[in-house]
Amino acid sequence: MTVEFWYLIGAALVFWMQAGFAMVETGFTRAKNAGNIIMKNLMDFCIGTIVFSLLGYTLMMGEDTLFGLIGLPNLDLFSNFKEFIASPADGSFTGASTFVFNLVFCATTATIVSGAMAERTKFSAYCIYSAVISLLVYPIEAHWIWGGGWLSQIGFHDYAGSCAIHMVGGIAALIGAIFLGARIGKYVKDSKGKVVKVNAIPGHSITLGALGVFILWLGWYGFNGAAATSVSELASIFLTTTVAPSVATVTTLIFTWVKNGKPDVSMCLNASLAGLVGITAGCDSMDAIGSASVGLVSGILVVVVVEVLDIKLHIDDPVGAVGVHMANGIWGTIAVGLFSNPDAPAGLSGLFYTGSFKQLGLQCLGVLTVGVYAAVMMVITFAVIKKLHGIRASAEDEIAGLDITEHGLPSAYPDFAPAVNKYSSFAAADGITAVASDIPVAEAIPVKKVPSFSDDDGIRPKFTKIEIICKESKFDQLKAALMEIGITGMTVSHVLGCGQQGGKPEYYRGVAVETNLLPKIQVDIVVSKIPVRTVIETAKKVLYTGHIGDGKIFVYDVENAVKVRTGEEGYDALQDVE
Amino acid sequence: MTVEFWYLIGAALVFWMQAGFAMVETGFTRAKNAGNIIMKNLMDFCIGTIVFSLLGYTLMMGEDTLFGLIGLPNLDLFSNFKEFIASPADGSFTGASTFVFNLVFCATTATIVSGAMAERTKFSAYCIYSAVISLLVYPIEAHWIWGGGWLSQIGFHDYAGSCAIHMVGGIAALIGAIFLGARIGKYVKDSKGKVVKVNAIPGHSITLGALGVFILWLGWYGFNGAAATSVSELASIFLTTTVAPSVATVTTLIFTWVKNGKPDVSMCLNASLAGLVGITAGCDSMDAIGSASVGLVSGILVVVVVEVLDIKLHIDDPVGAVGVHMANGIWGTIAVGLFSNPDAPAGLSGLFYTGSFKQLGLQCLGVLTVGVYAAVMMVITFAVIKKLHGIRASAEDEIAGLDITEHGLPSAYPDFAPAVNKYSSFAAADGITAVASDIPVAEAIPVKKVPSFSDDDGIRPKFTKIEIICKESKFDQLKAALMEIGITGMTVSHVLGCGQQGGKPEYYRGVAVETNLLPKIQVDIVVSKIPVRTVIETAKKVLYTGHIGDGKIFVYDVENAVKVRTGEEGYDALQDVE
Amino acid sequence: MTVEFWYLIGAALVFWMQAGFAMVETGFTRAKNAGNIIMKNLMDFCIGTIVFSLLGYTLMMGEDTLFGLIGLPNLDLFSNFKEFIASPADGSFTGASTFVFNLVFCATTATIVSGAMAERTKFSAYCIYSAVISLLVYPIEAHWIWGGGWLSQIGFHDYAGSCAIHMVGGIAALIGAIFLGARIGKYVKDSKGKVVKVNAIPGHSITLGALGVFILWLGWYGFNGAAATSVSELASIFLTTTVAPSVATVTTLIFTWVKNGKPDVSMCLNASLAGLVGITAGCDSMDAIGSASVGLVSGILVVVVVEVLDIKLHIDDPVGAVGVHMANGIWGTIAVGLFSNPDAPAGLSGLFYTGSFKQLGLQCLGVLTVGVYAAVMMVITFAVIKKLHGIRASAEDEIAGLDITEHGLPSAYPDFAPAVNKYSSFAAADGITAVASDIPVAEAIPVKKVPSFSDDDGIRPKFTKIEIICKESKFDQLKAALMEIGITGMTVSHVLGCGQQGGKPEYYRGVAVETNLLPKIQVDIVVSKIPVRTVIETAKKVLYTGHIGDGKIFVYDVENAVKVRTGEEGYDALQDVE
Repeated sequence: MTVEFWYLIGAALVFWMQAGFAMVETGFTRAKNAGNIIMKNLMDFCIGTIVFSLLGYTLMMGEDTLFGLIGLPNLDLFSNFKEFIASPADGSFTGASTFVFNLVFCATTATIVSGAMAERTKFSAYCIYSAVISLLVYPIEAHWIWGGGWLSQIGFHDYAGSCAIHMVGGIAALIGAIFLGARIGKYVKDSKGKVVKVNAIPGHSITLGALGVFILWLGWYGFNGAAATSVSELASIFLTTTVAPSVATVTTLIFTWVKNGKPDVSMCLNASLAGLVGITAGCDSMDAIGSASVGLVSGILVVVVVEVLDIKLHIDDPVGAVGVHMANGIWGTIAVGLFSNPDAPAGLSGLFYTGSFKQLGLQCLGVLTVGVYAAVMMVITFAVIKKLHGIRASAEDEIAGLDITEHGLPSAYPDFAPAVNKYSSFAAADGITAVASDIPVAEAIPVKKVPSFSDDDGIRPKFTKIEIICKESKFDQLKAALMEIGITGMTVSHVLGCGQQGGKPEYYRGVAVETNLLPKIQVDIVVSKIPVRTVIETAKKVLYTGHIGDGKIFVYDVENAVKVRTGEEGYDALQDVE
Repeated sequence: MTVEFWYLIGAALVFWMQAGFAMVETGFTRAKNAGNIIMKNLMDFCIGTIVFSLLGYTLMMGEDTLFGLIGLPNLDLFSNFKEFIASPADGSFTGASTFVFNLVFCATTATIVSGAMAERTKFSAYCIYSAVISLLVYPIEAHWIWGGGWLSQIGFHDYAGSCAIHMVGGIAALIGAIFLGARIGKYVKDSKGKVVKVNAIPGHSITLGALGVFILWLGWYGFNGAAATSVSELASIFLTTTVAPSVATVTTLIFTWVKNGKPDVSMCLNASLAGLVGITAGCDSMDAIGSASVGLVSGILVVVVVEVLDIKLHIDDPVGAVGVHMANGIWGTIAVGLFSNPDAPAGLSGLFYTGSFKQLGLQCLGVLTVGVYAAVMMVITFAVIKKLHGIRASAEDEIAGLDITEHGLPSAYPDFAPAVNKYSSFAAADGITAVASDIPVAEAIPVKKVPSFSDDDGIRPKFTKIEIICKESKFDQLKAALMEIGITGMTVSHVLGCGQQGGKPEYYRGVAVETNLLPKIQVDIVVSKIPVRTVIETAKKVLYTGHIGDGKIFVYDVENAVKVRTGEEGYDALQDVE
Repeated sequence: MTVEFWYLIGAALVFWMQAGFAMVETGFTRAKNAGNIIMKNLMDFCIGTIVFSLLGYTLMMGEDTLFGLIGLPNLDLFSNFKEFIASPADGSFTGASTFVFNLVFCATTATIVSGAMAERTKFSAYCIYSAVISLLVYPIEAHWIWGGGWLSQIGFHDYAGSCAIHMVGGIAALIGAIFLGARIGKYVKDSKGKVVKVNAIPGHSITLGALGVFILWLGWYGFNGAAATSVSELASIFLTTTVAPSVATVTTLIFTWVKNGKPDVSMCLNASLAGLVGITAGCDSMDAIGSASVGLVSGILVVVVVEVLDIKLHIDDPVGAVGVHMANGIWGTIAVGLFSNPDAPAGLSGLFYTGSFKQLGLQCLGVLTVGVYAAVMMVITFAVIKKLHGIRASAEDEIAGLDITEHGLPSAYPDFAPAVNKYSSFAAADGITAVASDIPVAEAIPVKKVPSFSDDDGIRPKFTKIEIICKESKFDQLKAALMEIGITGMTVSHVLGCGQQGGKPEYYRGVAVETNLLPKIQVDIVVSKIPVRTVIETAKKVLYTGHIGDGKIFVYDVENAVKVRTGEEGYDALQDVE
């Protein structure tokens, strides 16, 4: 009976991994999408529960049919509850236990994808995707591996899901990321569409991301261990599940330290997860040395795949889901064929322990078939969603953040002043709004003569401060344009513009939220040599869209300027700034 | 023996829910009260432990007496420890197990209330309340339901506490919120006291709130499951405890999407909890369809109750405790009479499965009697506290935030710049400080003549920038007053005022904290047509209190102004701003 | 078999405490070091796993040798996996279970130290320390107490590690903190090196710190309970593990309330941990009254030790690790000799229950010998690290924050505007950069004549605004210098300086991060009486370092100034500001 209790406690620990994914994915992305990511994580579990109950569960665990391809659907859960919760005479788990256990694993597969698709996916499209993977995609391949299907019949071994869950989730993540394209501003392209620069878009809370990793690691003791049928097997699993991520993390520590000169925090956090994914298939078939070897490779693999994907292939995976889950899911599944120790609980014969290639061949076959299946299914799924419904949020929504545009949540952190950062304003980089100069601003509305800014008394050169107040999303463009006309120094601050432009009301818990204090950027420039008129005209060109909220420019007289480093004053003090 | 271990593991999971409540309540309220809410959550567990040990536990679980009304108090815990920890011969749980198990449930009841009373309750009053509920209120009704009292004798069924815990906690929350009144600024009233506007006061961290929900959901597997006596029962409970919140969350997703046009993040998080509360009473008596039905109703109910309470009844419950716990506690208890499937472990006869009204009648009787009891006890408790001690923090303390005023904590997040938001300054809305204009400012101190701001050379109209530096709490009033005199545009920023006004020192870990950098609001206005003198006098009227820190106003010359959208310059550029 | 499952579940809960330590230590320190602290917590577990596998485990649990001093090292984990995971015939735990269990305890010891050494330790030095404690220091004393060594042979009782883990970790923390010295700005010294002022340096997220405390408390049910061999023992342990921290927390609530006038949030959170540490040694040997007594003392002790250490001894322990773990580790170990109830599961004879001094003597002997051993080992360890490698980060790195300097992470929270606070700029306090005035700034570079600021028309006195833009780290010095020349009011805001100074690129997930928007402080002062030239020269003296980024000063004309409180205008309005 103990084993059955543990089976359910383990399932609760796997549920807990949902919290881990939510924190990792939120922490490693931007604050303006935090509520949206929370919703996706919450919904893939909740929607998944419904569709897995209706069909997925029996597709996976129903009586094997169609030559090992699917389980036979039935409605026992709804029509025959008495039997569903009864302990079977053969001592196996009850239907209810098996259902809960498989449900939380299914939800894990679904939630892996949300990280790779973060910050730019239409929420409704994500809900549809999440229903499809839990209803059809996962249950069928999981039937092959765990439900009595053809792979389990021929001896393929994936104890807790390196292949069934992580590789499949990772493949879905990769395909989703490709279908979506990169976040605005992630890759700067030249006029021919070639990527000339890769931008880092740091996550908004490393501490929440780290908390998520610790949550996942704790949950993994349930993930890998829940199906153990003896305490000796479980202890062995706990051991390998501890050694592999520890070795992976230390490996990444050293690898990034040597490669970049400093040990990378978020990559080490990814490495812990990579080691956990890597050991998942063989957690019951490897010994200490085998699990350490798996971890060693995982620690390198995750860094290489994350960087190749980003820097070489320009596929934008904000949280590293492909590197962690797909790459290490494949690696972990194959590693079973290499490092399985016949003395471990599973009793499998790995190549390096027995010289036999048999298990390795089976593992490769499983990776290949399940991988192709998952890829085909997900391409179809995303293609259909894209075609019939649309998959990507509009550029405006993406720049504003999905919290406000998809959920009407002005901010997930309304009590904190947002930082001015370039990541809020990549529009220019992708050429999306680089249209201002075509608009005949000056012609449209007559511009009055500005008084000449000649020296007024001959004593001092004229210094002028120009204060530009504009939208956050225009800042990068403005900065670039100002630098082009020779201005090299400016002071930037975050202010709130208060005007009468109302905007559509948003609802927070059913109550309309007023948003008449709008975040703006204030740029202060002091010039002497560069004509004030040039600065004004440049700013106008960049900032003009013709919509309310384009901004204002104010001009002030400055009496003096001092450059601290050199002690220069007046005209000379501005020579590096202009 | 396995069941007994699980019983304690389940108790640990219920303890874990304290962390969930702390995160939900902190995340869904403002940053300036974060430390205070943490303290309340910590203290209701710690104070609760002490008073439950001394009396509450035996009132609840002692030998049934007074016709099923209370348990007979005894001091076995203190005087007879040997027997208290010995396994009884009849195979029931040890005294120590039962004590720990019931203690963590009691603490849950107490902590539900802190969310509804957040942001405006005197900390000392909360400590007193929390002692009373754990000492007396909860133990007595819990005796009726679980301690062998009269309700358990007649067949009332509340497996894990929809009624005993959530409804009672929710009733206490409702009564507490009514006794306190709304937070300053939540409801704007006209001169006759009629509410003319309901403001949303968003929580300061949706991610921490979401983390809290995940923590609670995990803990709930222990909450609902800890008392299971067989693995078959436990599996069935895990199933219903997963289905109900999932269905509730998806229901709220769709409901808010249809109703408000966008799916509401915080309401969906509430919905998960609502579904969990709803299934708590019948988690062992319902099947998959029954638990889905409970969830479906919970998902609608929580939204409706939260909105009715806020928008119609104007009762201010910052985190939705009444909608989640009271409404769904009642619903879940009654639902046992409707959806109980005789095939489920509890073997009860629900109306919709058997046509029998008997269980439904018992459930309604329980809801009614326990509800009335809880309401009467809590009215007395809060009335006495209000009368003898005071229950609400002063308006000044509330506006400044309870962290600094109750605990001397200048900020729970000192490394982050606070946002300027209207929620920090609702004073005006409630008319609390709308007194400035009565004070004879000008008469008190002779005002010097200001130089006239006529055009100085005839070339350009005079533009003037007025920079007002004031207290955050005055900003809303100032904005309103400036708009009244025709100013429609301003730039607002958060600055720190550094002066010599010392203030009383606060202590952080025994060390005095200096607070001579005080947060201020800087409002910049540029005017041309509106006389500078009018602006200055208006600002003075609003800002004057006669105390140090009222603020300063500076006036600058502006050489030019440009409106980007229209290209207008000078006088014309200001025509929408003034 | 149940006990063995619970043993592993308990181990998973102890692993979970790593997350608790990470959150407590991050939350109670500054945002600029958040990523660094996360890395330290992650690495002491991962590095610890590796070295504990290689040698530590067998040093601790190998066959007792050398007269009870160490276990005999062996390589069974690597060479004899079959036996390592087999259930021994005598019914004891498998090698794998024992390994995982002891590993997570070992990691707890290591991680206690990171809090006391936070915010100023070289990351590489910390990695070395963490390897040494897990490889050698902890395993040897743990062998004495739990591995069959001499202390266990004579009857010393430390059930779950008040002495073996918390006291030893706390001693290492104390010695580490002494070797490092205080954080810059923590203690202000006069010219003779005497501390004249103790500064509080508040932690950056009280909510994350509180979450960490809840995580630790949950984990502690596993920490104290995992080794229980019967459910009766476990229930008794859960009871004492709940009562002691509750009483400790309420005690600190009252103690700080009375002492400082307000109940201290972070101290109450520390108190919960103090009570948990205190009950750890005797959790199986005390009853309810004993555990309450332990908590009562712990609640006072933690406050007194934290304050004495800080205010009297000037030892800088940012998170209170010494007060929590060392002081209460000692107290808890000795308390076993005082409060053990022969009726509790352990059956020990405490002085207050039996009048026997025997157990008390044994406990004191254990505290003394283990304490001396730990102190000697740690002094050697830190001395060698300091000598051969260096232990403290450079002052520049410390001021900039270890996230950017050690890990190339510009910010753990890039989407939030950092607050201007004095804690970022304690350089002046320690005299570290008080060098500016020696540099012949004016002589080095010829300074131009500034136009005289005489009244220009006789109508109004001249008011001038001086806008100083400088590095954050110079702000405190600047403020002090300005106050010395008579300026008492200023407005401070956080801005971003945008210049061409590039800086070395940092890497986030392998991608270079641009940092050309540098955080700066803008100080605005308006003067009339105090000559503008005096202000400029003073600022130049303080800000000058000769490096790029020293800042700029701009001077503007002001037309008028109004002091709201008095209604004074012009010259008079400035009389308290200058």
